[in-house]
Amino acid sequence: VVLADGSVLPMLRPMLKNNTGYDLKHCFIGAEGTLGVVTRAVLRLRPAPAARATALVALTTFDAALALLSRLQASFPGMVAAYELMWRDFVAASLSWQQLREPFDAEHPFAALIDVGGPEEGALQSQLEAVLGEAMEAGLALDAAIAQSHAQARAMWKIREATAVLPEHMHPPINFDVSLPLADIGRFAEACRAALSACWPGHHTVFFGHVGDGNLHLTTDARTVNGEEDAVEAVVYGQVAAFHGSVSAEHGIGLHKKPYLAVSRSPAELAAMRAIKQALDPLNLLNPGKVFDL
Amino acid sequence: VVLADGSVLPMLRPMLKNNTGYDLKHCFIGAEGTLGVVTRAVLRLRPAPAARATALVALTTFDAALALLSRLQASFPGMVAAYELMWRDFVAASLSWQQLREPFDAEHPFAALIDVGGPEEGALQSQLEAVLGEAMEAGLALDAAIAQSHAQARAMWKIREATAVLPEHMHPPINFDVSLPLADIGRFAEACRAALSACWPGHHTVFFGHVGDGNLHLTTDARTVNGEEDAVEAVVYGQVAAFHGSVSAEHGIGLHKKPYLAVSRSPAELAAMRAIKQALDPLNLLNPGKVFDL
Repeated sequence: VVLADGSVLPMLRPMLKNNTGYDLKHCFIGAEGTLGVVTRAVLRLRPAPAARATALVALTTFDAALALLSRLQASFPGMVAAYELMWRDFVAASLSWQQLREPFDAEHPFAALIDVGGPEEGALQSQLEAVLGEAMEAGLALDAAIAQSHAQARAMWKIREATAVLPEHMHPPINFDVSLPLADIGRFAEACRAALSACWPGHHTVFFGHVGDGNLHLTTDARTVNGEEDAVEAVVYGQVAAFHGSVSAEHGIGLHKKPYLAVSRSPAELAAMRAIKQALDPLNLLNPGKVFDL
Repeated sequence: VVLADGSVLPMLRPMLKNNTGYDLKHCFIGAEGTLGVVTRAVLRLRPAPAARATALVALTTFDAALALLSRLQASFPGMVAAYELMWRDFVAASLSWQQLREPFDAEHPFAALIDVGGPEEGALQSQLEAVLGEAMEAGLALDAAIAQSHAQARAMWKIREATAVLPEHMHPPINFDVSLPLADIGRFAEACRAALSACWPGHHTVFFGHVGDGNLHLTTDARTVNGEEDAVEAVVYGQVAAFHGSVSAEHGIGLHKKPYLAVSRSPAELAAMRAIKQALDPLNLLNPGKVFDL
């Protein structure tokens, strides 16, 4: 990392454990270049799992989706590579935009796209079959399909990847990237939809999330006239505040979310951030104006 | 966290992803109370694996031990719970101090104590058998025993837990807790032993490590007269410096290792630590004198 005063922090140490004073690298990860410029990094590589299995599961409630996630994490510890939950509005929009066939015999409130890894193809498939079979017997899952080929896995992922064609169909979209305590995501989505409906009846809003990470995305066309984007954001981030969530799960703050940073960080935290910024970049040379104002 | 000025940072957020400005918690983890007092924490719990398997493996070289570790990590991704490597001196001392029987038919240069987890006992045991069998065929392992009962697993761990009785037998011991790039640990241990032998012929030094974490412990009685502890530390940390390792893998700096902090952190890093300390605790109220001097 190059600091504001031109000095260089050489931190290319490949040790897994290093308990020698402050863990400086975390000052720079996620700081969006406001504390230093990262010029080199050490990455830890792990072998890719030899086998992967993909499934699409139909679910009735968000709580059932969470219960299924727990079962998968217990059965495939550390190897649940994706747990993408799609609310019905998202699935319906994706099928319509991309002219895809309904994946199940009926429409279901939720669909979870699951990717798990393991050392051996056959064993992985049968273990996934067993876990999903038990989830269906327990009433958690309504229906499930395990991809039998790479083409079938790709077809399942295509439903989720509607985000690629979304801007053609919802214009202009307003995208959100929020995170919530895992158990609250279902109720947050309901509250958020209700709040948007109260202000913008007839809005079209789709929800999907990397629920394994507690991360929810929603995209809405809610607005009656141009220029109401701020009002839509105020409504959604108001719900995030009510659920003590984060206004940015993975995309950072930049300029756009700066007005909402205080939704997720307390005045004391913002003061601590300013103190660190002041300590490492007293002349405010590095990416000035981003994340927060001094 | 309570800061030096009495303000409280409320950071009890259970979200898995939160990208809203600086990741403040990492300022306090490992800072040894010099930047704030942690009063509450959110922990993430994961289900314990339903089954565990324990094995003791005899090896000829450190490189063979690393190759076996890689195979285990590929076969049990995320589930290698322990990979404790014991150099022969350590095994010999442990057996003698605790009056235990030699675990193999012959004395071997290294013994690795392995714990792996998995969803099902029978499958886990046979998978571990297969991996260790292949390692023996490939010439990596000389001999191997898989515990068939909890008692057998405890007996294997007892060899490693000689550290509990060590102070009775090496007095006073000088303990080290260092970490190195994984590939260098074997050569570091040899260089360290040679450097100690050059200064203190007849010293008794035992090496073992959490090698899965790159963490090596060594304990030595090297000293000719009382008060040479500093000289012994200078020799060992000199070798750590030569291999670009860390003087503290897991036990921190405190007062004792403060003179050696610069072995593992550059002047620019120490300056950045001082700037952060100055920003968050300008009156030096919190755990003064620990980790580094202002």
